[in-house]
Amino acid sequence: MEFEEFSSMALPEIEANLQQTLKHYVPHDFPELREMLAYHMGWESLEDVTNRGGKRIRPLLVLLCANAAGGDWRQALPAASAVEYIHNFSLIHDDIQDKSELRRGRKTVWVKWGIAQAINTGDLMFTIGHLSMLNLDSEQNPVIVMKASELLLQSCVFLTRGQYNDISYENRVGVNLDDYWKMIGGKTAALLSCSAELGALIGKADKNLRNNFHSYGYSLGLAFQIQDDWLGIWGDSALTGKAIDSDLAAGKKTLPILYGLSKNGDFARQWKKGPIPADETHWLAELLEKEGARQYTEEMVKQETEKAKEFLDKAVGNLEAGKPLWELTQMLLERKK
Amino acid sequence: MEFEEFSSMALPEIEANLQQTLKHYVPHDFPELREMLAYHMGWESLEDVTNRGGKRIRPLLVLLCANAAGGDWRQALPAASAVEYIHNFSLIHDDIQDKSELRRGRKTVWVKWGIAQAINTGDLMFTIGHLSMLNLDSEQNPVIVMKASELLLQSCVFLTRGQYNDISYENRVGVNLDDYWKMIGGKTAALLSCSAELGALIGKADKNLRNNFHSYGYSLGLAFQIQDDWLGIWGDSALTGKAIDSDLAAGKKTLPILYGLSKNGDFARQWKKGPIPADETHWLAELLEKEGARQYTEEMVKQETEKAKEFLDKAVGNLEAGKPLWELTQMLLERKK
Repeated sequence: MEFEEFSSMALPEIEANLQQTLKHYVPHDFPELREMLAYHMGWESLEDVTNRGGKRIRPLLVLLCANAAGGDWRQALPAASAVEYIHNFSLIHDDIQDKSELRRGRKTVWVKWGIAQAINTGDLMFTIGHLSMLNLDSEQNPVIVMKASELLLQSCVFLTRGQYNDISYENRVGVNLDDYWKMIGGKTAALLSCSAELGALIGKADKNLRNNFHSYGYSLGLAFQIQDDWLGIWGDSALTGKAIDSDLAAGKKTLPILYGLSKNGDFARQWKKGPIPADETHWLAELLEKEGARQYTEEMVKQETEKAKEFLDKAVGNLEAGKPLWELTQMLLERKK
Repeated sequence: MEFEEFSSMALPEIEANLQQTLKHYVPHDFPELREMLAYHMGWESLEDVTNRGGKRIRPLLVLLCANAAGGDWRQALPAASAVEYIHNFSLIHDDIQDKSELRRGRKTVWVKWGIAQAINTGDLMFTIGHLSMLNLDSEQNPVIVMKASELLLQSCVFLTRGQYNDISYENRVGVNLDDYWKMIGGKTAALLSCSAELGALIGKADKNLRNNFHSYGYSLGLAFQIQDDWLGIWGDSALTGKAIDSDLAAGKKTLPILYGLSKNGDFARQWKKGPIPADETHWLAELLEKEGARQYTEEMVKQETEKAKEFLDKAVGNLEAGKPLWELTQMLLERKK
């Protein structure tokens, strides 16, 4: 099966499962609470769930891995919803922590409803995520459901530890490349590796096979994040929807920038002077490239991409059921936005 | 066994279990994250866990109910830690939402480390709470562990829905007594009823018996909260550590105040004028009493206390193992601070 065919079949079921689960835990007599949750999920309301929001990459990954491991992907739907909720809980809190006012072109939850309600809505979404996991068919095998719950909770430990690092790096002088790897391992790779492993687990893969899925998801997550960092400086703003060199203007400590700082050359001297005016970011991006940051970043994307593919090869090889997963991987790693 | 004897045996084990669980999920290389978690738990650090903080009522309740249901209370320790973590997660976020600067006489986490880190520390504590539940001995019975996880997560749904109400009532005109019951049912009673039911579940009580423990915890929670509301206006400030009539000065919508507002008399007219100066709260407390709010509040405490005792009687009757639980109940309901 092609990825296109798979996703056109699976995406509506993901949306339906996400919606049903929310409705179940947040009844009619909490209309505003429903509205906040639905709004953040990218829907107009719980009654109109046309998706204007996320790409649902993580739930697709769960389902594709369950399918590739030889399982029935429909059985994995509660786990797919679970990771999507956890991802979205982290975004709601992230937006407060970063003071981000826009997400996917719309006002963030805290801007619309205030910080207090936004924290609480994130907490509720987090709760619903873990509850969703318990909707896996436990009669089949309660040990698998427990293991799945544990995997997701453990990934939240990595997520919050990574988030701790991210917040503390913001005001810390001397953040280095090691710090970066530690941070994105938690912030981005943990939930993707968890998604892949969950699919495998529900597809009844054995421990060894599950580990390959896990490692595949982990490298995929790293490659994905580094690619994001690359796009934040050299991406085509017409495609990314962000300003050119936006990460330079924002003073973010992304991989190319930390590499540049580690060289202690002209770039580092300029950057340390403080906020970079918008008309100087282009010149700084060139300086960064001259000092090798672009090449280094591209090498790192390539390195993690190769690793991801190696593990995917170990996990699914040439299996017919693995085909759409190979496609998704290729798409994610070649994205220009 | 007396309550005193039980708690002097159980409290050190609760502290040890809480501490070990935190250490396990937050390793040495996250010293500041450990510090934040330990600080909020009322410890000096993870190396010096002398408890200067909470009273650990919820974990004690879990253990006492497990014991009363005929189980081995030591087996319930992971569940006891779980509810204490969930309680503390909600306090960390609550303090941000309420802009409270002090808790138990010390600066709150957000005041010391900022809002971004405080949100994240709460998220991590929430995660560790649910992970702790999975430390129950699953080899004995995975279905019980799953059920326990579900109970705790479900109580977090009630908790966050109650918190939603609480936050939205703050700025809403026309909050009434019905709204109040809905709100404290979630905010206070949900976690106490969950604690009691968890103990019963782990003590292998059947569904019917578990329901009695649950209802006991629920009424206990309501009585506890209403008592708190009473103390917030008529409590002896030398004992409560709060200013006299403090809830009046803060403009909180507690039970006596909502009762007073519902009477639409002199109290309501005064209260609606806006913030009450400190030198007028005493006079307003008297007005409130004259209009029947004190009597109504005392009746409600009595009503819920009676219910709690009825259910406790159904659950444990005169069983020797239930004795310390009767004692704790009495202590909580007669507290003056």
